[in-house]
Amino acid sequence: MPEPLHELAAALPEGALLTGEATEPYRRDTADGAEAGVPLAVALPETTEQVAAVVRACVANGLAIVPQGARSGVAGAANAIDGAVMLCLERMTAVLEVSTVDQVARVEAGVRTIELARAAADAGLFYPPDPGSWEISTIGGNVATNAGGMRCVKYGVTRDFVRELTVVLADGEIVRLGHRTVKGVAGLDLVGLMVGSEGTLGIVTEVTVALRPAPAPTAGLSAAFPTAEAALAAAEALVAEPRRPSVLEFLDAGCLVAIDAMIARGEAPGPRLPAAEALLLVQSDGPDAGADVEHYAAIARAHGATLVETADDPARADALMELRRLLHPALRSLRGAVLNEDVSVPRAQLPALLEGIQRLAVDLDVTIVTGGHLGDGNLHPFLAYDPADPDDVARSIRAYLAVIDLAVRLGGTATGEHGVGSLKLPAIEAELGPRVVAAQRAIKAALDPQGLLNPGRKY
Amino acid sequence: MPEPLHELAAALPEGALLTGEATEPYRRDTADGAEAGVPLAVALPETTEQVAAVVRACVANGLAIVPQGARSGVAGAANAIDGAVMLCLERMTAVLEVSTVDQVARVEAGVRTIELARAAADAGLFYPPDPGSWEISTIGGNVATNAGGMRCVKYGVTRDFVRELTVVLADGEIVRLGHRTVKGVAGLDLVGLMVGSEGTLGIVTEVTVALRPAPAPTAGLSAAFPTAEAALAAAEALVAEPRRPSVLEFLDAGCLVAIDAMIARGEAPGPRLPAAEALLLVQSDGPDAGADVEHYAAIARAHGATLVETADDPARADALMELRRLLHPALRSLRGAVLNEDVSVPRAQLPALLEGIQRLAVDLDVTIVTGGHLGDGNLHPFLAYDPADPDDVARSIRAYLAVIDLAVRLGGTATGEHGVGSLKLPAIEAELGPRVVAAQRAIKAALDPQGLLNPGRKY
Repeated sequence: MPEPLHELAAALPEGALLTGEATEPYRRDTADGAEAGVPLAVALPETTEQVAAVVRACVANGLAIVPQGARSGVAGAANAIDGAVMLCLERMTAVLEVSTVDQVARVEAGVRTIELARAAADAGLFYPPDPGSWEISTIGGNVATNAGGMRCVKYGVTRDFVRELTVVLADGEIVRLGHRTVKGVAGLDLVGLMVGSEGTLGIVTEVTVALRPAPAPTAGLSAAFPTAEAALAAAEALVAEPRRPSVLEFLDAGCLVAIDAMIARGEAPGPRLPAAEALLLVQSDGPDAGADVEHYAAIARAHGATLVETADDPARADALMELRRLLHPALRSLRGAVLNEDVSVPRAQLPALLEGIQRLAVDLDVTIVTGGHLGDGNLHPFLAYDPADPDDVARSIRAYLAVIDLAVRLGGTATGEHGVGSLKLPAIEAELGPRVVAAQRAIKAALDPQGLLNPGRKY
Repeated sequence: MPEPLHELAAALPEGALLTGEATEPYRRDTADGAEAGVPLAVALPETTEQVAAVVRACVANGLAIVPQGARSGVAGAANAIDGAVMLCLERMTAVLEVSTVDQVARVEAGVRTIELARAAADAGLFYPPDPGSWEISTIGGNVATNAGGMRCVKYGVTRDFVRELTVVLADGEIVRLGHRTVKGVAGLDLVGLMVGSEGTLGIVTEVTVALRPAPAPTAGLSAAFPTAEAALAAAEALVAEPRRPSVLEFLDAGCLVAIDAMIARGEAPGPRLPAAEALLLVQSDGPDAGADVEHYAAIARAHGATLVETADDPARADALMELRRLLHPALRSLRGAVLNEDVSVPRAQLPALLEGIQRLAVDLDVTIVTGGHLGDGNLHPFLAYDPADPDDVARSIRAYLAVIDLAVRLGGTATGEHGVGSLKLPAIEAELGPRVVAAQRAIKAALDPQGLLNPGRKY
């Protein structure tokens, strides 16, 4: 065993350092098209102290470190780098504390999002962030990407719930950042800086999140519209309501066709879908959720919705959301592979974004269908392509970047919730500008002078 | 005129550079006991470009820069430093835009908080943060301190509403940080880093804030309790409600005595106060505010409240809050001067905090009365002292630091919303630990290598 591997093994429990073929499952996240190198080893620490020991061993040997959780990311941020040590926190899964009085939970970084949500619910409390992959994603990964989800429209993103972090810095020192208290301005907002930094500034090993009182049982509705414009106008009216929907999702005609085809093929249960140009899926979890949903339904109808279904209990509301969950498999089955965009624009620019995407699809001869978090202005255009057709691949990549460029020109961003990773790096400097990128790199250099933490990602 | 003053004058419009006696009104904020130096000059720029030109002139001459707004701060962060240039943004008062669709407002940094709130209300929208000084404070100052207020318990602090900042960096370059969109993770969270950095990392000249749909008319209640413990227990029950109160304030027996004495002296209108050990002031601005308040009143009674008054319209709800507004003048009239604490603890530690403060008052022979944002765990113990009695002053400063020490030992912080400034600097390293302070200083050095931006504050 070469010297660095000896040192790494010494920092970890028996069997917690993988090399060779055993590292294969840890090489990539779910991003089609992001590169993945060949790591030196995978470290599977069980404690913050072991993480710190691994970091010190890496620093001593000048080894790059790629932190990762469940590899459910979609931007390649957790993919292997040649010769790097993959620091996977999947074994740090303890729910350390749920406090009903302080309305916080303290968990290790490898706890899955859904486990955190369950622990909160068991205490009569509520952890709102619900990224699409929450059944497998870890809270550490959510923190690293500042993960969003469907309930952001009412509750905000992961950042809005993180109070305190235990972080191993690039020199192997362990620090506590932030505060358990609701408010606190004693220091700079280093928690905010860490959240969404994609493992480039430190390794988060423990997270204290804010919880809320449990909401009322969810009610929901689905509304089909004859035009996308009508659905957008309805959505604009819905977010103007003082009783904010807890979910406000959009599926365009292409999404509906793909999902309906899947149902027609018998690959998913449920009745065939009506032909429509757009569908809104809306929920409320307020104290008068049933009344809210009736009110939302009236708004949808007033904006021309042709088919409105409401559900005043959680099970039926959940059933209405089933279509949304079919979206990913349905799209993948269209052409074999999918590039998943994550653009976000100011809400007033949503019509221009959708129109521009349609034009791009025609001009560049690519298949783009669009769904996502309409209430936030955060949409996921999906580019379906045939990975075996190099020309299709090239056109799709061109369209992928063109959609980002369009969103940025509309005052938006390349990524609302997925992160930069390696996949969106080419677009970031154009969006942020060279001076802001330089400031980010100066901060990175201040906290990680050797540049060992997830190098080449995010900036 | 010495050379640097020439350069500064050239960067500004006619009459926008003050020197000598004319600088006197700009030397200090409202913090009793914080030092204030003698500045070289006061610059009163009217545009971001002029701010940048002033910064470049300061950099060229190695002059320290102290940014300030309305000087309504309470920690000395905007106080003059000997030989520094005071960069006061009070002339940058344009409300640039209010967008109802995007639910944002874009304003210059010198806009007063209340003007921002009014501009939002005129568009049928709502800017929730309401720091105590909001009638005079500027949004730039709110951003610099991450200001809180009474509505934080429901809506969060200034940080939760800041989307985008125009900032002049320490090299005089102008950058846009953050994004107008609801979500965005393209860059590090430099907006979060700037918010609360007290002018040490850059000079904020323009702010885009998120707005919300206008809430329902406010209803309120006041509830008097026979013991502080009973009031704390009632507050704990109130924040456990899914319908979160929009205000949840606390006044202890000392606060009530001081306010009642003011009323008895005829210095404030209103009936005399009942003798009580604690008072809670609660509001709701939810769609069923009246019903919420009746429900809250029942909770208060169930926890032993002896006198409960409810008000189901905004004017009467506002009248119930009048006591809270009398607190500051009432306390100042007690002994002549007041040290205003701003500690925050996890809610579960509130009983221990109040008990510990009472013990400190006895042990150190000082007058401490406590009020504040109970729902957030953010309390303002006030130390009333006679500024002419050096022994009283010394005891009060000792008690001031002892209260902070107590809060930190209870897992809390020296400052929930006021900031560090110069006043709380002595307590910060003990709270954050040397490694975190070192990380903060490294970030400061990365963004302000010459250390000219508000030196000696915050860290």
